[in-house]
Amino acid sequence: MSEVYATRRSRLRDRCQASGSATALISRPANVRYLAGAAPRGAVLLLGKTEDLLVCAEPPDERPYEGRPDEALLIHTLPRPGGDAAVAAAGLAASQGADSLAVEEHHLTVSRHRAVHETAPQLRLAGLGTAVEQLRVVKDEEEISCLRIGAEIADQALGELLESILVGRTERHLALELERRLVDHGADGPAFPTAVATGPHSGRRAHRPTDRRVEEGDFLSVCLGATYRGYRCEIGRTFVIGTSPADWQIELYDLVFAAQRAGRESLAPGVAYRDVDRAARQVLDSARHHEGLPSLMGHGVGLEIDEDPQLAPAAMGKLDACVPVTVEPGVHLPGRGGVRIDDTLVVRPEADGGPELLTITTKELLAL
Amino acid sequence: MSEVYATRRSRLRDRCQASGSATALISRPANVRYLAGAAPRGAVLLLGKTEDLLVCAEPPDERPYEGRPDEALLIHTLPRPGGDAAVAAAGLAASQGADSLAVEEHHLTVSRHRAVHETAPQLRLAGLGTAVEQLRVVKDEEEISCLRIGAEIADQALGELLESILVGRTERHLALELERRLVDHGADGPAFPTAVATGPHSGRRAHRPTDRRVEEGDFLSVCLGATYRGYRCEIGRTFVIGTSPADWQIELYDLVFAAQRAGRESLAPGVAYRDVDRAARQVLDSARHHEGLPSLMGHGVGLEIDEDPQLAPAAMGKLDACVPVTVEPGVHLPGRGGVRIDDTLVVRPEADGGPELLTITTKELLAL
Repeated sequence: MSEVYATRRSRLRDRCQASGSATALISRPANVRYLAGAAPRGAVLLLGKTEDLLVCAEPPDERPYEGRPDEALLIHTLPRPGGDAAVAAAGLAASQGADSLAVEEHHLTVSRHRAVHETAPQLRLAGLGTAVEQLRVVKDEEEISCLRIGAEIADQALGELLESILVGRTERHLALELERRLVDHGADGPAFPTAVATGPHSGRRAHRPTDRRVEEGDFLSVCLGATYRGYRCEIGRTFVIGTSPADWQIELYDLVFAAQRAGRESLAPGVAYRDVDRAARQVLDSARHHEGLPSLMGHGVGLEIDEDPQLAPAAMGKLDACVPVTVEPGVHLPGRGGVRIDDTLVVRPEADGGPELLTITTKELLAL
Repeated sequence: MSEVYATRRSRLRDRCQASGSATALISRPANVRYLAGAAPRGAVLLLGKTEDLLVCAEPPDERPYEGRPDEALLIHTLPRPGGDAAVAAAGLAASQGADSLAVEEHHLTVSRHRAVHETAPQLRLAGLGTAVEQLRVVKDEEEISCLRIGAEIADQALGELLESILVGRTERHLALELERRLVDHGADGPAFPTAVATGPHSGRRAHRPTDRRVEEGDFLSVCLGATYRGYRCEIGRTFVIGTSPADWQIELYDLVFAAQRAGRESLAPGVAYRDVDRAARQVLDSARHHEGLPSLMGHGVGLEIDEDPQLAPAAMGKLDACVPVTVEPGVHLPGRGGVRIDDTLVVRPEADGGPELLTITTKELLAL
């Protein structure tokens, strides 16, 4: 595994040197984990001219820990707890003769940036931009395999829930039960707060579960995901409670299903992000559901649940192979409820069979 | 309730004007909630010369929501989702004729700060410092009442766990069960990730639960808390599994208990933060447990689980009445385990009966 991290760091080092900074300070936790194999709380990665250093704010044993640091990395732990590893790393960089340091300006606060500058005023501070996030977009097969296992876990947890009695139970209890099942099946934990939305709440994006109970005739929409070895996936489904869905429910479901299928089928290397959004969105638009539509129809997933690319109307860029994304259109009718359908897929070329669906729970409208 | 928020904003406005900024931009979510009654995702509060505005990144209905915004506030929602409310708020401030804007430099990233500046270059950007955090230190009785209810919920959840069979169950399952019980008893959710640590893990601060199972003879240390109406409390206890604790376990428990009692008994208005730390720490030091001691012996709680004051060796400042804090010394012996005991208390004057203990689960060494 160690080579994977060394290769990633070497790619980043090339980018930094091309833009004039030989030394970089990585502080965003998901970026630290991507390059170092682990992101102990408060740790930063100092990417030096030749040598890389994981600077930890506390002895690793004392705090929650995810993953294991690449054994090829030097590890430096601050002598006293409570210090800022970014500030300490800047001091180390200066003492090793660096003259400039690229930092993650989209992650460091103004105060931390100032403290870094004051500790090492001889360092010219540059911006690293989202260089690491860009490296993270295309996944290797090891990463995809973690996402695939996470998706299997989420499918299992959801499948078990569907076999239980739902009427009368609250959104909060159903969400907690799903999260317990994720862990039962081997997840590190939920990938994000599980959303369970009933009746008038159904179809809302990222609905926060309430004490409302499932009732006959409700739409029930559920969105959950597992984290597996740090990788986060997402699945969303909408069901109807009771034996006979109303006509408006069937109509709305069919519409969102068609939009989601159009989005899925548009996924291919070389397709513009905005065209995936448009493929799904125009189906909803055509049914005059253009109000209250979500701002995006999907997004990348990986070490974070919402990462690049954004599949949104104004997004710039094109899909590559091996980019995992969600496709998740939805419609919410205020006061009535709605439908969301959400899958995680990996973009693959046509020759490899097209998009790989990771979340395989049925998308038929189940009446539970 | 509306008056409470208006009074808080008025106190902050006085502070800002005293330091030369008539307008302030509050972006840190807990600070927004403190001053506005709610912090919708991505929202910021613009404190104007006379009028205050909650600027929301998205229509409040679309996203998880905590609390209700003060009805006296004007609410402005960005016309398109995906924008930065801080940037929009700066534009509004400039258009209303403000000439300077105090921002939370410890929360805004360098990139957001730059975007704020570029949107409204005529505004002089100043630092608000931690003015809101300082206002939050002393709680009113309404806030303390939320913490008290949260503590009762945590005590109940812990009490029920102790009545169940523990041997053979994993740390992760016990943590999930505690979190479910918190919600059962009316919590918004856990105040922080529940820590359950067995055997060699016991006594670690913020231990992340693993798949290790509870065994006979283990120490079991548990740290949990409930969030109630946004307010977060904390309780930690250590138990021994089986009928006869070993001598070293009894000795270590008595030591940490004595340290925790010394910390609790030192709490009074006017006492220096560092003296509370010292009161607990010197008991552990005297037993030569000076290595691997935590960096602090307690901290404030409220809308965040770890807020000012820090009860640490280098902390500056003195306790006031109505400041809720934890007292949580612990000792962890690598390879063997350890003990942590953690309460949430409110500082009260001697005349009112001294410190008010919110978390009342027994601190006797229970053999389970």
